[in-house]
Parts: sequence; C-alpha cells; structure tokens
Amino acid sequence: MDLDGVLAEIRAQVEPSIGRGAVADYIPGLASVDPHQFAMTVAMNDGAVHSIGDSDVRFSVQSISKVFTLALVMARDSNDVWQRVGREPSGSPFNSLLQLDQEAGIPRNPFINAGALVVTDRLHRLTGDARSALCDLVRTESGVPEIGGDEAVARSESERGHRIAAMAHLLASYDNLECPVDEVLEQYFWQCSLSMSCRELALAGGWLARNGFRAHGSRLLSLSQTKRLNAVMLTCGTYDAAGEFAYRVGVPAKSGVGGGILAVIPGVCTICVWSPALGPSGNSTAGVAALDLFTTLTGWSIF
Amino acid sequence: MDLDGVLAEIRAQVEPSIGRGAVADYIPGLASVDPHQFAMTVAMNDGAVHSIGDSDVRFSVQSISKVFTLALVMARDSNDVWQRVGREPSGSPFNSLLQLDQEAGIPRNPFINAGALVVTDRLHRLTGDARSALCDLVRTESGVPEIGGDEAVARSESERGHRIAAMAHLLASYDNLECPVDEVLEQYFWQCSLSMSCRELALAGGWLARNGFRAHGSRLLSLSQTKRLNAVMLTCGTYDAAGEFAYRVGVPAKSGVGGGILAVIPGVCTICVWSPALGPSGNSTAGVAALDLFTTLTGWSIF
Amino acid sequence: MDLDGVLAEIRAQVEPSIGRGAVADYIPGLASVDPHQFAMTVAMNDGAVHSIGDSDVRFSVQSISKVFTLALVMARDSNDVWQRVGREPSGSPFNSLLQLDQEAGIPRNPFINAGALVVTDRLHRLTGDARSALCDLVRTESGVPEIGGDEAVARSESERGHRIAAMAHLLASYDNLECPVDEVLEQYFWQCSLSMSCRELALAGGWLARNGFRAHGSRLLSLSQTKRLNAVMLTCGTYDAAGEFAYRVGVPAKSGVGGGILAVIPGVCTICVWSPALGPSGNSTAGVAALDLFTTLTGWSIF
Amino acid sequence: MDLDGVLAEIRAQVEPSIGRGAVADYIPGLASVDPHQFAMTVAMNDGAVHSIGDSDVRFSVQSISKVFTLALVMARDSNDVWQRVGREPSGSPFNSLLQLDQEAGIPRNPFINAGALVVTDRLHRLTGDARSALCDLVRTESGVPEIGGDEAVARSESERGHRIAAMAHLLASYDNLECPVDEVLEQYFWQCSLSMSCRELALAGGWLARNGFRAHGSRLLSLSQTKRLNAVMLTCGTYDAAGEFAYRVGVPAKSGVGGGILAVIPGVCTICVWSPALGPSGNSTAGVAALDLFTTLTGWSIF
Repeated sequence: MDLDGVLAEIRAQVEPSIGRGAVADYIPGLASVDPHQFAMTVAMNDGAVHSIGDSDVRFSVQSISKVFTLALVMARDSNDVWQRVGREPSGSPFNSLLQLDQEAGIPRNPFINAGALVVTDRLHRLTGDARSALCDLVRTESGVPEIGGDEAVARSESERGHRIAAMAHLLASYDNLECPVDEVLEQYFWQCSLSMSCRELALAGGWLARNGFRAHGSRLLSLSQTKRLNAVMLTCGTYDAAGEFAYRVGVPAKSGVGGGILAVIPGVCTICVWSPALGPSGNSTAGVAALDLFTTLTGWSIF
Repeated sequence: MDLDGVLAEIRAQVEPSIGRGAVADYIPGLASVDPHQFAMTVAMNDGAVHSIGDSDVRFSVQSISKVFTLALVMARDSNDVWQRVGREPSGSPFNSLLQLDQEAGIPRNPFINAGALVVTDRLHRLTGDARSALCDLVRTESGVPEIGGDEAVARSESERGHRIAAMAHLLASYDNLECPVDEVLEQYFWQCSLSMSCRELALAGGWLARNGFRAHGSRLLSLSQTKRLNAVMLTCGTYDAAGEFAYRVGVPAKSGVGGGILAVIPGVCTICVWSPALGPSGNSTAGVAALDLFTTLTGWSIF
Repeated sequence: MDLDGVLAEIRAQVEPSIGRGAVADYIPGLASVDPHQFAMTVAMNDGAVHSIGDSDVRFSVQSISKVFTLALVMARDSNDVWQRVGREPSGSPFNSLLQLDQEAGIPRNPFINAGALVVTDRLHRLTGDARSALCDLVRTESGVPEIGGDEAVARSESERGHRIAAMAHLLASYDNLECPVDEVLEQYFWQCSLSMSCRELALAGGWLARNGFRAHGSRLLSLSQTKRLNAVMLTCGTYDAAGEFAYRVGVPAKSGVGGGILAVIPGVCTICVWSPALGPSGNSTAGVAALDLFTTLTGWSIF
Repeated sequence: MDLDGVLAEIRAQVEPSIGRGAVADYIPGLASVDPHQFAMTVAMNDGAVHSIGDSDVRFSVQSISKVFTLALVMARDSNDVWQRVGREPSGSPFNSLLQLDQEAGIPRNPFINAGALVVTDRLHRLTGDARSALCDLVRTESGVPEIGGDEAVARSESERGHRIAAMAHLLASYDNLECPVDEVLEQYFWQCSLSMSCRELALAGGWLARNGFRAHGSRLLSLSQTKRLNAVMLTCGTYDAAGEFAYRVGVPAKSGVGGGILAVIPGVCTICVWSPALGPSGNSTAGVAALDLFTTLTGWSIF
C-alpha cells in the first residue's frame, strides 16, 4: 500500500476541517497554539515511518500520556490497579465528580481524569518517581532522549486545576489514593504537560501494535495485556465520543485536549495525528476526520 | 483448528459457572427456565457449524433481537434513524429514564430499551409490520421457517411492562415516536419473546461475520454498515458491562436476559452461547466465561 | 386594618409585574389566556371578603387542586397515604422522573406531579369517585354549586400528557398505584382542569386558616392535620421556588400553572391571587409580588 | 404556662428515644461522646430560662454554627451573599458535590456544607477574622466569655476532611471563593468545633426570637432579615429532613451532627435541645422527639 499517497490524500481532504472547532483555552499554554496546524505519522510494525505535515512540531500530549502511565502500571501489577479503577465507559463528561461519588470513589476507567489520578498515584507509589518512569519509556521507544514536560504548562494546569484537586480530594475521601494529594496532583499535571511530536508519539506507542513488544524486542506488556489495553482505548479512549469514534473509525485510540490522537491497528501500525482545534467532545476535529479517512482508504479496521 | 475440541474444552472448563447467578425472574416464562442448561454453536463463514450442549433447545432471545431490528432499519434508511438514537455507551442501567430525560428523548444507543423502542417504531413505520420483517429475516437466514414468538412470554412482558411503557410515553413526550405508543409496545414485547436455539441464532446472524452478505449471497448491509453495527455491538452490546466484556473477550456481542449471547469474529464466524443464569450485569455468567475461553483458545480477537 | 386600602396599594404597585413572564403554553386552553389579568381576594376568618381586580373571572386552578385532594385523603386516612408519598421538598424540577426512580417509586411530596397522582389514586380508591369528592368540597365551601372542570382543558392535558403518563406507569411499575393507570390519569387531568375564580378559591380553602373547620362548622381536618398541611404547603407548595417563596413571602401557599396562588395566614385568612404570566419557576410573577407586598403591608407572616 | 412542668414531661416521654440511633463517628472527638445524654433549655424573650438535663455540658455545635455565621454576613451585606448562595432546600444529601457542579458552583442554601463554605469565605473576607467575629457574637449573647473551639476536634475534622476540601476546590473552580482554599477550610473546621452547652446556645440565638434584637438591645438583624433567616432555617435547617421536621414540629430550627438542635418560636423563645445519638438524616433522635412534644404540649407552632 502506498501510505505516502494515502497520507497526501488525507491531507488534501481534511483541509476544510483544519482549524474547525476551538483550541482548549483553559490555560495560556494551550490557548495560544495556532489552530491551523496539522500533522500525521504512521509507524509501521516493520519499522517504516510515514509522515505528513508538521510531524516534528511538539505539542502538549495531555491525556495521551494516560496510555503510557497505565501501561507502566499494568507492566508492574496488572491485577491490583483494577481493584481501584474500572473498565467501563463513563457515559458522562470526562471529569464528572458525580459518578465518582455515586460509585464510592472507584473511577469508571483509567482514561477519565479521576481514573488517571489513581493510575498516577499507583505508578508513583510503585516507582517512587512516576515522572522518570514515564520519561524513560517515551524517550527509549521514540529514540529521542530530550523529550520532557513543559514547566509553564504544568504550572498553569496546577493553578487552574481546582476541579482536578477536588477530584483528588474526593478520591482521598474514599481512601483511593496512596500518596499525598499534593504529590499526586504534581505528578499528574506534569504528565499532561509532556511535549512530543506526532513522530515521537507514534514511535513511543509502537508496542501497542506489536503485541506488547518494545522497540528493542523486550516485552512491555504480555499479548493479553496489550489486547486488553487496546480494548480499553476503544471503549474509553476518546472521552464521551468513544462510541461514535468506534462507529466511524473503528480502531483503538486515545485523544488529548492538545489536539493529538494516538491510534492503533493491532499487528500493523500505530498512527499519531495532531491538529489543535477540538470538536464538542474534546477530540481534534481534523484528527478524527483524518483517522476516519485513513481506515476508509486503507481498509484497516478491527471490525 | 479443531473447533469441536475447543468447544469440548470450553464445556468442561465452564462447568462450575453453569447455573451461577440467577435467571431473570420478572416474568413467569423466564423465571421457570432450568438454569443448568448450556449450549454453544459456532457458525463458520465457510458454512461449517460446530455445536456443543443443548444447541437445539429454544430460549427467549430477548434483547438479542435488537441486533436484527437495527440491521433491518439500517438496511432501509441508515441515516435517518441516527437522528433519533445515539451510538454511545449509556454508562448507566440499561433502562434509565433519567438519561433519556436529560438528553431530550434521544436514547444513547439502539441496544438500551429506549433506543430499541425507537428502532422498533422506525421499523414498524417503514415496513408496516415490524414483526413480519423480523420473522422473515431470522427464518430465511437460519433456514428454519417455524421460528416465532412466544405469546405467553409477550403477554407477561406486556403485563409487567409499566417501566417500558413509561419509557415509550417519555419518548412520545419528546416526539420521538412515529407510531402510537400502544402499537410500538406490542411490537417491542413480541420481539423480545422471539424463541430461537443457539444453532438458529448463530446462523441467523451470519451476515455480521460475512461483511453484510446474507446466506444466499445478497447483501443485507454494506461492508461499512456491517463494520459499524459490529462497532455498536462492541461498545454497547452487553449492557453496563460492555467495557469489561471488550476487555475480557474482545469481540462484538449482544446479550439478552434469556441467557443468550450472539458474538462475532468479523470475517470468520458468528458464535451463539446460551446458559440462563445471569451475572449482576444481566449477561449469562457461563456464556461470558465460554466466550472468554473461546477467544483465548482460538486466539481470535479483534485487538 | 384597612384591607381594601391594602389591596388597592398592592394593585397599584404590582402593575409593572402584570404580564411579565409567559403564560403556560403546553395546551391551547392555557396558551390563549390574556396575560394582563389580575385578581386578588382575601377571605377573613370572620367571614369578611375583600377583593380587587377580576376576582370573579374563572381560571384553570391546575395544581392548586392538589391541596384539596390531599385534604380529602388526609380526612379519610391520614396515616396510610404517607407510606406512599413523602413530605420533603423535591429539590428538582416538579416533574422529575429521575428522583421517582431513584427513590423506588415513592414521590417526594404530594404536590409534585407524581405525588399528586398517588393522592388522586388513593382518593379515587377511597371514594370510588375522586372527581365528585373534589367537586363537593369546593362547591360547598365556596357556596357556588356550578363549579366544575373544563372538558376542553382536560382533553388537551390528556392528549399532551405523555410525560404524566410516563410517571403514572413508573409509579405502577413500583406498585404504587391501586387503580388502573388510565383511570388515575383521567381523574388527574380532570382535577387540573377545575375552573374557579379567586373569590371561589379563597373561600373554598377557608378551612386552612380556620384550623380545619369547614364553612358550616364541621371539621374537615383536625388542628394537627391542618397545621401539617400548611407545613407541607410552605416547604413544597411553590415548585422549585418554595425556599425563595418562604424567604420572601413567608406564608404557606400552593401555586398552579394557570397563574393562581392560594395562600394561608393561619388563624387569620386565606388569600387567592391570580395573574396568568408565570416566572421561571412556574409561579405567577405578579401573584408572588402581590403576596410579598401583602405580608409586608400587613405584617402578617408566620416567622 | 408551666414550662418546667412541660420540660419534665418531655424528659419523661423521650426517655426511650435517648441513645437511639448512632453518634457521628467520622472523628474521634464525636465518636467518643456518651450517647445517653440529654439536655434542653428554653430561653424566653422575657429573660426567663428553663432547663432540664445536662444543660451546662458543652458539646460540639457543628452545623448550628452556620446560623451565626450567616447572621453575621447578613448583618454586614445582606444582598451580596445571596448572589453566591441560594435559598432552596437541596433535596439531596447535605454534602452533594453533584448538585454544586450542576448548578455552576452556587450552593443551594447556606446550611449545606458548600453553602456554609461560601458564607465562611464571605465572613472571613468582610471581617479579616471570621473566627473572632463568631466568638464575639456567641460570647456576648450568652454572657459566657470562655466559649471557644475545640482544637482536637478541629484538627480531626481537617484530617478527615477530604470531602469538604473537594467541595472547597470545586467552589474555587467556579470562582465562588474569595479567600484561599486552605484559609477557608481552616475557618470552617474551627467553626464546626465550637463547643457550647444547651443553655449557652439558647441564649446565644435569642435574637432569632426577638426580631433581630441582641441581648443588650442593639440590632443584629432587621425585622425582615430575622424573618427571612427563620424561613431559611425552616426550609433548609435540618438536612434532608426539613420537610418532615416542618410537618412534625413546625418551627424554624438548625441541627448539628454533634446532636444539638437550635429552634425558634418567633416572638416567644429560643429552644436548644441536645442528645448525641442521630437518626438516619443526621438529626438528634431524642432532640427531634423532644421538640415535637414541646410544640404539641405548648401549642406553639408557626402554622
């Protein structure tokens, strides 16, 4: 398949979608991003990498980081974390305090904010330094040692983060945090501020398409764990639009409010697309359109 | 692959799960079913059929019928119905009036009760006789002309059906029913009472695994429509446990409170499993365990 | 106190509020009412009656009828009905299906729609003819034998009443109706259509201010029952604005979407005010303003 | 009226209720209180004070402090605070995060926890020292200068206070706090820890029954403000049981989880009753029973 041709075709067709919607504006670091950018990288399991657009421009990965922290926890204690966080779509806005409260402090899944706080807490407890564990993984897999967080973004997230703080305290009230609230929040905000390019993200997530094998051949996750992580991405990875995304695009994916989406064709490739303007559900408008076209043009889908 | 061996292995391993949980007891026709039954049929795309257990015993298909009515509507007007029903997991109990009310009478998806009422209403309006359309489809695909509803079950459902009636009136209050409330309810209760065996159901749903092609080669749905229906089954097909089911089993499926589950390996086969005792989410305990083993033993999964 | 002077002062001051808001428009019989009407009647315990404005013009009493049906049930079996309906403010829109569902079919109080359906059901069961019982009461107390329902209004309510029907079916699903759903709905819609003037309503409710004594000296309710009914009116009588109404006006009252409000100064008088345009909570804008002025000018308040 | 006789009669009749239910156990300072204590004080507007039982034993006033902080804010800026907190019964558990979130960070009323945080924040901003303002008021009115908080209780509340912290952060996320979250929480926990006896509380709240006049004749609140504060107590003062309390007892009151209840007969007296064991709604079981008897025996009620 001529993937460079496919990407060119996608780039041409999504043109009208680029910039449609609005960039996340709750912190300056996101609000000031030019919405008219677009990039897409396909990292094949055989090592080939195809890109189009601004694929080396870094952006705030935001919630895409949740895939990596979850994998790091699953690799360490795959059973225990599922006592503290569920695997069901939330069916309500991704930051809902209500549901967390009704369900005794057990977040619905690891990709909503409350669930990611629990995963971060667990990773921090397991490793003593969640930040370093995450950095090591994405740097090694992408082969880019200078990947890091954006301190200004992390600081703004923290200053504007009363709702996340409310969620962390609510988790603590249900005894579902092991580390101190402030420490968990600091780690969480730092993860969201991780700054990576499409190319770096597609490579960093390659193990998702390689049944759990890392770039250099060791295992991050078992075959079964990898399938299961992909399943959670499919049912919970794109906020309240996971059903719609599965219907239209039909592959596991995780989006972030920075405008990035990391998608997986199990056994074939990982794809990262980025365009900062978001639709009503918080997913990149042009990004969803590009992935929709990608599965249509390649015929690659899981269904 | 020796599927007869796989089924025998499954039968042996799920033994302790058979009868675990409780049969649906809200109507006599379901409450009186012996919970210790078990059957499983795999209908391969090449025509081979493998069964184990009571695979010719008929049971109440209940919500599995929702797959067929949705397909019949999609085959007729795939666009319009999605204006009236969503494609997102509900995230709350499958008969929630609250969500329907909060979301202006648009049910979350076609597999929760409210959504199925809308689909039934649409099918009845499109065909003038939803019951016949459904009968024709399942009879033709399974090759068994005497399949039909169970009048006693339909009558009990209707008599005990104040909650469904409440839902239908609420839909009507939002102008989301085209036919009279009483007519829609009658059609709906009849569909739930449809009585079929594992073998009949696996065959009747064969087009789900054959990219939309019916048993005799004509199309029921397009390739894209079929993929999309499978996606909706994956994200919404097993009540509030769809995320858990995707995580553990990893294939599209639709369950019913009669204890049946219809599952799909796209491009390979359909599977029907039945065992009447239900777990807390309303899915057959032994049925879920059997499908979990099936994907583990065969390695067939979509992720 | 010169009550005629007080009423004239009120009439002058509320002038700007008359017509502010919107008349209920869900049925033609209410939508066509001229919003610029205003009337107020004070019926003193000593028999004196003071009125201003269109106090003999009849309007649709709507939910004000709920005070009378509740009193008729309390007079017959004061204990039993409280097993089936609560006495707490609902805290959510007056027709909430959610709360009814979360609280196992026990409506929060007798003045929300669900609660009134239960009271109507009980009255109909106790008397065999709820309609006649209600007619008898309001005709005898007001001394006006020709008071009755408005068939056109009742019919429109019924045709547009899918939401109320949903509520009745939900109550039935929780076994909280004794009579058939259709019969309860017919009685309910008829009660809402009752057509009375300010003068008639103030007189008909006189027992609320007379510690339970009817116009001709017999008891409708005991002293304690009357106090308790007044308490329920204060905490639950004005939809979601009961707290605000208690804060501003400070007396027991029951409003209806026809624009009427029946208020009580225990031991002193009943007051009925009417002006059809409603504020956001469904209470008459000018009516609330008039009662606010009335308690300020007279100093009569319960606090 | 022989109030000492009334109190003796009440003491005798409530005997079986004393100790029924459970003491609040979320912090050691409350959990260790002997549930078999009982006290009641009636402070007449004419200066007479009648007590029975352990009326000089101090207990944790907890939420009763909310009446005093609200009065102090109303006395300073009666209008502004109502832009930031409502006056409606909440209709849901007294610490509900859901409602706060659904209603854009505006708490339903000043007596639920979220509302009290806003009132505390306002008082702290207005006075620079909410704690001193509160101390001054209760010390002066009761004539007991050594009244103060219980540091151990305040510290435990703070350590166990993740839910309140979540609420404060949620308020902050809606820009409904003026002071820093930590400062508001410290003030709030201190207020709850205030330790007073029945006699002290009944005297400290005397202005509620005296139309706003303080013990030494100056005004704390205007007549209208006092009536309104009494109205808010009636509709919102006893958690989720305000409707039931109005129905049974029929007077404005504010309860606390320390087992105290402060009640008002406007124009006549204030009453404080205390018994630590709480019923399901968080109100003192014996306390409610005693107030019910008090209004029955004296005939004093507002309805």
